[in-house]
Amino acid sequence: MPDFAEPLARLIIEFKRLPGIGQKSAQRIAFHVLRGSRDDAARLAQAVLDVKDKLSLCAVCNNVSDGEMCPFCLDPGRDASVICVVEEPHNIMPVETTRQYQGLYHVLHGAISPLRGVGPDQLRIKSLLERLEGSPVKEIILATNPTVEGEATAAYLARLLKPLGLKVTRIAMGIPVGSDLDFADEVTMTKSLENRREL
Amino acid sequence: MPDFAEPLARLIIEFKRLPGIGQKSAQRIAFHVLRGSRDDAARLAQAVLDVKDKLSLCAVCNNVSDGEMCPFCLDPGRDASVICVVEEPHNIMPVETTRQYQGLYHVLHGAISPLRGVGPDQLRIKSLLERLEGSPVKEIILATNPTVEGEATAAYLARLLKPLGLKVTRIAMGIPVGSDLDFADEVTMTKSLENRREL
Repeated sequence: MPDFAEPLARLIIEFKRLPGIGQKSAQRIAFHVLRGSRDDAARLAQAVLDVKDKLSLCAVCNNVSDGEMCPFCLDPGRDASVICVVEEPHNIMPVETTRQYQGLYHVLHGAISPLRGVGPDQLRIKSLLERLEGSPVKEIILATNPTVEGEATAAYLARLLKPLGLKVTRIAMGIPVGSDLDFADEVTMTKSLENRREL
Repeated sequence: MPDFAEPLARLIIEFKRLPGIGQKSAQRIAFHVLRGSRDDAARLAQAVLDVKDKLSLCAVCNNVSDGEMCPFCLDPGRDASVICVVEEPHNIMPVETTRQYQGLYHVLHGAISPLRGVGPDQLRIKSLLERLEGSPVKEIILATNPTVEGEATAAYLARLLKPLGLKVTRIAMGIPVGSDLDFADEVTMTKSLENRREL
């Protein structure tokens, strides 16, 4: 059976490598690019390359940045006394969308995972400690994911940071707002009970 | 609120332009590209450009091709007495996956749609008629989509081709009406080919 022409088959394979895109979606997208203009294709290709060529990590917080420092670290309006620690650069967005947080960030680029061979040394923890020296930081919010790896990372950082006399906090885990108690899994419900606050 | 760095924001916008990709998927894919190697990004970018630069339409059947003629038209093993007419190049794949069809194809690049201002002249119908002159073709299978536009196109082609003394058939309505050829499973598609009716 003759297959798609080689460049088309190759583009389908490349799209399939991307997360959340299967065979049918990859075909659909590839034919969309094929039908579209040469300019549209060139813009997409250039954007893919630029994200590798024009971006680096912020020298302070390791967030993705197109300059020496990221927009958060450069912004004098942000509260330099609080640092929110996240696993990945994209974890910053959900915190920002709350519009409640005005502090700075620190991106670890991963979480401790013995199964995947990721230990504390593979994470950007040393740069966090260096950053704290002589800084006005009073509180560290640990916003790693509510997973086994994220929890292990938060526990490790808490042990490391508390002796420095800092306030170390962890984001609350519980039942999502607007959800129903019936849909909560046992672990979440347990966390929700443990983290109960007096009213 | 500071946004993503410019190249990252631009890549997210470009991915969002693709069919079936929303904001969250686009972010996820963009960060995947960012985390991946420069080589992976370069391969994706090159594949996007090559699909525009290295592909053209088969001189015979208008299928997408990386040469003067497509693999189907070049294959001497295919039955040149039957032509299966489809709307788009990607509609060939579901027919091929049945492994029941050994004939050739003709791609119309669309369907008659008065609402969108697409008439018979905008489709590759003239090249189909030219192709039939002095050819060994005995049967034309109309495999346009089971939609209003596809049905109208099939009816139009039947009126045009039957006076030429050809057997003109339509794939059976085993495929749910209002759906798309690409979503048909192999068994349904096979039934659809077997049950084709003469018009």
